[in-house]
Amino acid sequence: MTTTPTPASVAAALADFRQASPLVSCLTNIVVAQWTANVLLSAGANPAMIDNPHEASGFAEIASGVLVNLGTPYDDTAAAMRAAVGGAAAARTPWVLDPVGVGALPWRTGLARDLIAASSPAIIRGNASEISGLTGGVGGRGVDTATTSDAVVDIARELANTRNTVVAVSGEVDQITDGQRLIRVHNGDPIMTRVTGVGCSLGALMAGFAASVDDPLLAAAAATALLTVAAESAVAATAGPGSFAVALLDALAAVSPDELESKVRLS
Amino acid sequence: MTTTPTPASVAAALADFRQASPLVSCLTNIVVAQWTANVLLSAGANPAMIDNPHEASGFAEIASGVLVNLGTPYDDTAAAMRAAVGGAAAARTPWVLDPVGVGALPWRTGLARDLIAASSPAIIRGNASEISGLTGGVGGRGVDTATTSDAVVDIARELANTRNTVVAVSGEVDQITDGQRLIRVHNGDPIMTRVTGVGCSLGALMAGFAASVDDPLLAAAAATALLTVAAESAVAATAGPGSFAVALLDALAAVSPDELESKVRLS
Amino acid sequence: MTTTPTPASVAAALADFRQASPLVSCLTNIVVAQWTANVLLSAGANPAMIDNPHEASGFAEIASGVLVNLGTPYDDTAAAMRAAVGGAAAARTPWVLDPVGVGALPWRTGLARDLIAASSPAIIRGNASEISGLTGGVGGRGVDTATTSDAVVDIARELANTRNTVVAVSGEVDQITDGQRLIRVHNGDPIMTRVTGVGCSLGALMAGFAASVDDPLLAAAAATALLTVAAESAVAATAGPGSFAVALLDALAAVSPDELESKVRLS
Repeated sequence: MTTTPTPASVAAALADFRQASPLVSCLTNIVVAQWTANVLLSAGANPAMIDNPHEASGFAEIASGVLVNLGTPYDDTAAAMRAAVGGAAAARTPWVLDPVGVGALPWRTGLARDLIAASSPAIIRGNASEISGLTGGVGGRGVDTATTSDAVVDIARELANTRNTVVAVSGEVDQITDGQRLIRVHNGDPIMTRVTGVGCSLGALMAGFAASVDDPLLAAAAATALLTVAAESAVAATAGPGSFAVALLDALAAVSPDELESKVRLS
Repeated sequence: MTTTPTPASVAAALADFRQASPLVSCLTNIVVAQWTANVLLSAGANPAMIDNPHEASGFAEIASGVLVNLGTPYDDTAAAMRAAVGGAAAARTPWVLDPVGVGALPWRTGLARDLIAASSPAIIRGNASEISGLTGGVGGRGVDTATTSDAVVDIARELANTRNTVVAVSGEVDQITDGQRLIRVHNGDPIMTRVTGVGCSLGALMAGFAASVDDPLLAAAAATALLTVAAESAVAATAGPGSFAVALLDALAAVSPDELESKVRLS
Repeated sequence: MTTTPTPASVAAALADFRQASPLVSCLTNIVVAQWTANVLLSAGANPAMIDNPHEASGFAEIASGVLVNLGTPYDDTAAAMRAAVGGAAAARTPWVLDPVGVGALPWRTGLARDLIAASSPAIIRGNASEISGLTGGVGGRGVDTATTSDAVVDIARELANTRNTVVAVSGEVDQITDGQRLIRVHNGDPIMTRVTGVGCSLGALMAGFAASVDDPLLAAAAATALLTVAAESAVAATAGPGSFAVALLDALAAVSPDELESKVRLS
């Protein structure tokens, strides 16, 4: 578990992911639910959105991985998230937290901290202000990134160590740490920020990779590599944000492990 | 009502559907709501998603057809579904049940059985494991198809006879029965399973056809024929799941009754 | 505030909007949430969908503008809408009401009237039957337009005067009034009605423009001009409703103030 991810190990993780076709239970928001399902399907996983309190726990037990995304929580779905984390913990299903808007928005900040306290996620994925907000820092305005990702690495390391988790900070360069190791993914394109849900779908991919790869740091890195390398391919077929989103789904299905190995830029 | 659907009657059903432009009230899930509305609009129908308990019954009375899809039910929308089925029954509005995840997930399985017991749907549309789950069989993992559609025909016939409904089993070949007649639609493409909501939108199309065609078996067959023939057209313009989804919406608007008659493969 | 919008002032409004990149809090429906976010992102704004009762008021205070869209209200999100309007009023954040289905559907009609009574929106945007329904007229069937937009101008003027708001009536020609001034936007294409959420996203754009432009009539006209001129550009790249929606997002990002000034047709 102490090997740093390499292009070869990231490529092998994609092959394992496609082989496993993990069943990912997504408790996510009304904005990105369709997009998230389509990203998972294109990439080779099997999405299911079971986000009611009656079924979320039981389904988290049989799912390969669980995503909890706080984009549009309500009392009812927040109860489902608590149930899902409980079910995931009971069955040792890896779960991923995407703390959308945490720090800037008080109610969900409390919810996020409760969920983490109940059971450590395999991976926490957010932008710099959200990661900062999780640990008590002041968040940005809504879902924006108000803190540079460089400045947040210390916070991410501390959070990873305290909670025994992997923390992935999205930004121009994606930075991922388990508290000891730090891996940076340098792929991607600015147009990714012009389509809603690209970051949210990265959390879902991480839940799928966490289900098919033993090392959560490698899982987070491989998911990030797949999405950002696919985004670079998609840009070539793009006339704007609308056609980019379509081309990104096409590219997620087309990127092979070999292509990923040759194109991913890690440091 | 005892004539088996033919390419000519399916084509005539599409012409009637386009002429009627049925108003379809959809109580569906957060993942596919947008896609479902766009499929109905492209095909020529008029969607409205009235899924709160205060208005669902009254709107089901004035709608041409009603879809109840169990993809992401909550207490609140489940109450709306019960109300909508009540309103549909009172006004004799045909309604379609899409029992997403039934069998695998206990709470919605009870909900689905309650809805059917309250008023027979015109059509029940699901994959093999969902149809099996409705009748007490063990469901698959989430929304997957765990049972072959061949094996489920007997179950479908029995369900159709017991509940006086039409049962449409989606799969590589779509099989539709009213308990006596059995019609198979052989069109479609495997890429349909790589886009979320294609099956869900078929349920919505069936609700529209059930509103504009007297025979529910013909309605289910014509909706299936339209979607799967359009999918075959769309594949030609496709570089992957993303561009397929876009092309499918284009094709749904472009397929004419004549094209449907010439391309549909029934048995 | 008494100057009628011109092509030049509409173009300047777009430049101001892009410069401001307004943060738009959207309380909208499950059908169009993704589309609305993508329209705002493509156009140059920054969407956030904070639609729970715990956070909607506080976020409305810090947002640049607020959209309340009644497409799929529930008890929980209706409470959030009331909170958001309260927060917007307290912080003088402009808010826009999109009364989807009002008139035809009784519960949301009461909700819409309550919201307006609590605090005048900067802009009310709807089709003719919805605007009519707000003032007591009988609405159409669901989200359809049952009344011609010509006939509704008198109603719109009266509503604007009574509530000290701007009323924008969508239709083949968009008509916008603050009670005194009346501006018509003649751009657009019939295919806009074959994609769900195009009208809903116009309400979101209006909330963004109302945040970056002082005159709400100009804000409503500029948002309408941007969307309809972009739609005309998109039609050229369109093979049907699916590809039109993609091209519209591309065009929203590509339309410049100069292009808007040269193509918008006002009267």
